[in-house]
Amino acid sequence: MAKLVLIRHGQSEWNLSNQFTGWVDVDLSEKGTEEAKEAGRRIKAAGLEFDQAYTSVLTRAIKTLHYALEESDQLWIPETKTWRLNERHYGALQGQNKAEAAKKWGDEQVHIWRRSYDVLPPLLSADDEGSAAQDRRYANLDPRIVPGGENLKVTLERVIPFWEDHIAPDLLAGKNVIVAAHGNSLRALTKYIENISDEDIINLEMATGEPVVYTFNDKLEVQDKTKLSK
Amino acid sequence: MAKLVLIRHGQSEWNLSNQFTGWVDVDLSEKGTEEAKEAGRRIKAAGLEFDQAYTSVLTRAIKTLHYALEESDQLWIPETKTWRLNERHYGALQGQNKAEAAKKWGDEQVHIWRRSYDVLPPLLSADDEGSAAQDRRYANLDPRIVPGGENLKVTLERVIPFWEDHIAPDLLAGKNVIVAAHGNSLRALTKYIENISDEDIINLEMATGEPVVYTFNDKLEVQDKTKLSK
Repeated sequence: MAKLVLIRHGQSEWNLSNQFTGWVDVDLSEKGTEEAKEAGRRIKAAGLEFDQAYTSVLTRAIKTLHYALEESDQLWIPETKTWRLNERHYGALQGQNKAEAAKKWGDEQVHIWRRSYDVLPPLLSADDEGSAAQDRRYANLDPRIVPGGENLKVTLERVIPFWEDHIAPDLLAGKNVIVAAHGNSLRALTKYIENISDEDIINLEMATGEPVVYTFNDKLEVQDKTKLSK
Repeated sequence: MAKLVLIRHGQSEWNLSNQFTGWVDVDLSEKGTEEAKEAGRRIKAAGLEFDQAYTSVLTRAIKTLHYALEESDQLWIPETKTWRLNERHYGALQGQNKAEAAKKWGDEQVHIWRRSYDVLPPLLSADDEGSAAQDRRYANLDPRIVPGGENLKVTLERVIPFWEDHIAPDLLAGKNVIVAAHGNSLRALTKYIENISDEDIINLEMATGEPVVYTFNDKLEVQDKTKLSK
């Protein structure tokens, strides 16, 4: 009966300033730091012990993982960071204030970009300022897979191979796993684990810093889902 | 021309209280935290960019690594933790105050335990309180290699296989590597890298939080050694 804990990073500085973030490497806010530590205390109180940790290559998720592990006395467990767990890439919207974007493109268009399953945002090209193609952390990837913008469908298509190759085999081997990631990469995992429809998944909201604990049987079927709430 | 940075963890709470630490998982002191961040600022000022990080499974080294990487904007690089980079295991001396140990066993005996290359300290057995054999982080190791106490020679013999299997191949592949570890595991690496004698190595002191930068050629010969001092 392996356990999987999903945790969405705590509040970031751009959650606070209401900007589209995506792959921009924004730090946790003070509140976000406290949320991550509190998550660690709940994990400790629940007696959860992990064998493996996964996170994205974005600082806010990595720090959330580290705070949660440190508070639960298991900062020493193996940790793997991957771009596949990154937040959805928000294309040319990254860095824009959400209210200003709504003025510029109209409420409805911005709502579609935010809430549709398969509509892409305006894309960044490789030579645009802030393009992931210019970031050292993606330099070892085939340039054809470095996105200029993603919808939830595309996000899911690059998250699930990581589930298949790493997370699922760990769980099947009886390991307990913690994944610290982002609103949309965790939506993708949740959709796949719970077999949620394209229409319903976009309305699923994960609270920041609230660990979600799945228990699986040896066929990787969900036996229990529990949120570690206050 | 690959670069290797060695960094000894900042001051720990037991450095402060003058206790033998070894494998006991003591946290950084406030000063130690500041030393680690300062190391990161020096790494950033020196323009050092890493491809891979290695550290021990002890919190004080892991946190030193994380602070140094975060301050130099590269918390996202791959990180591997291994018991092979742990501090020398100090056997039954662990947890003892150094002055009290000198009273109990005599100055000369304690000096020998601290400063000889190949004399073992009094050992812990597997069922003694505080034995590594009871610690979940070593549960996947063959019980025969979980130490009850080490001298520098034994420490070196378990550190060097990690150099051979991981650090050296990375450097030969042109990767820049950072290793955050402990006084004695770093002595072991330094002895091997610089071919220092059994007699001389014990007098080598590494300052806490001061990054040491080696530059290697493609035959893994040292071309330069620089300390990032204040």
